[in-house]
Amino acid sequence: MAGTNRTERDLAEADQEQIRQPVIVLVEPQLGENIGAAARAMLNFGLTQLRLVAPRDGWPNERAQANASGADLVIDGVEVFGTLEAALADCTRVWATTARSRDMLKPVLSPSGAAQRARACLGAGERVAILFGPERAGLTNDHVALADSLIEIPANPAFASLNLGQAVLLIGYEWLLSGRDVPDERVDPGATRPATRDELVAFFDHLEAELIASGFLFPVEKRPGMVRSLRAIFTRAALFEQEIRTLRGMVKSLA
Amino acid sequence: MAGTNRTERDLAEADQEQIRQPVIVLVEPQLGENIGAAARAMLNFGLTQLRLVAPRDGWPNERAQANASGADLVIDGVEVFGTLEAALADCTRVWATTARSRDMLKPVLSPSGAAQRARACLGAGERVAILFGPERAGLTNDHVALADSLIEIPANPAFASLNLGQAVLLIGYEWLLSGRDVPDERVDPGATRPATRDELVAFFDHLEAELIASGFLFPVEKRPGMVRSLRAIFTRAALFEQEIRTLRGMVKSLA
Repeated sequence: MAGTNRTERDLAEADQEQIRQPVIVLVEPQLGENIGAAARAMLNFGLTQLRLVAPRDGWPNERAQANASGADLVIDGVEVFGTLEAALADCTRVWATTARSRDMLKPVLSPSGAAQRARACLGAGERVAILFGPERAGLTNDHVALADSLIEIPANPAFASLNLGQAVLLIGYEWLLSGRDVPDERVDPGATRPATRDELVAFFDHLEAELIASGFLFPVEKRPGMVRSLRAIFTRAALFEQEIRTLRGMVKSLA
Repeated sequence: MAGTNRTERDLAEADQEQIRQPVIVLVEPQLGENIGAAARAMLNFGLTQLRLVAPRDGWPNERAQANASGADLVIDGVEVFGTLEAALADCTRVWATTARSRDMLKPVLSPSGAAQRARACLGAGERVAILFGPERAGLTNDHVALADSLIEIPANPAFASLNLGQAVLLIGYEWLLSGRDVPDERVDPGATRPATRDELVAFFDHLEAELIASGFLFPVEKRPGMVRSLRAIFTRAALFEQEIRTLRGMVKSLA
């Protein structure tokens, strides 16, 4: 059991980057497949520190390895402990994921609230652990009693049961989001750039001249409205310079 | 194939609630297990409308049913189409989830940006579809060309590959969050309530009187600092009325 042999020196030597992320603790996990899925989900979002408390089928576990789908970095670094107390010995903040509400007066964090708070605590040099219970029944009340707060994953109350890998996935996802500024919408222009208003107007002039020549913009008294309608289409599209050239080529070809 | 028999009347009769959520479209899914996992993940977050385009192993699919873990509501309502164009025929907004960036000038939405926009579009009476590609290679460029925007799930660039069920899970999670006000932190006081400052001060008076009697708060010149330290512990804990009573019982018992 790697965990029981850790020394102060090992801890001191650990990669600083490693200390700047929460430790994921799976308490009494049953199926190796789920340990593997959790490891994979962790690495998907940049988490690498996994501790197991009394895994039912021991450790190492071939099925965990197979189901981790290449998340060897996580699997190879797994630390195993006999008790939750031992797994949490060096942690200063402990939060327990739970599906059902408990008869305990503990703060309940949202996944994003927990992720933001984890960054703040880790930034202040604390060591943060996030607990996940066994597949069948989740964490016991005694497990939860060791935690400072609960983390509740919002779900459809009529169908709320998430599997272990999915619960870890959502926590990992929020962890990554909390450290990254992801815009609601962006456009990657690649080799081109947004068209200038000058380029757009030149296209309009070209298009409308051809449409007058082809007889589309008649009768003359309806022309202003028709032009405005066409311009609305192309302004709404927020065209790129390269697209203006494509459209002008198209108009030329059709005319 | 249920989808091909849909009529205008069927659509008109569909539950209004159903129309107020995005349609999840799995394009050429390969493994029934993944269709089941997607269905389960959908229902976890209240999504129920699932369309399949040319599922490799046909439909119905026993493995999908088994892996849906009780999400029968989704599985029983699956609509199957021969082409993506047919599956999207009645949709007005189409967004394609994709892991890799494409050589296309399309807006890229974050999952939460997509969820918020979906609510806005659905609220305006639009029909929104979110596409997920086949397990092995994802959506082709031709599939993506039918979409208005891309949705990119942020992940660890060195290990970004999510499986189908997980991708659907994250989109579903953001969908649910976009419709719910989930506080970063809350406390459910249950049958009790936060203690009033009066109750807290009465506890302090009780505790400090006993600590003077027991000789703990000596020498007298250090007493103010010791009292402030003790009070800091109990104010930081943001005690509930019931906890004050527990603490007073504890002090009484020790004294």
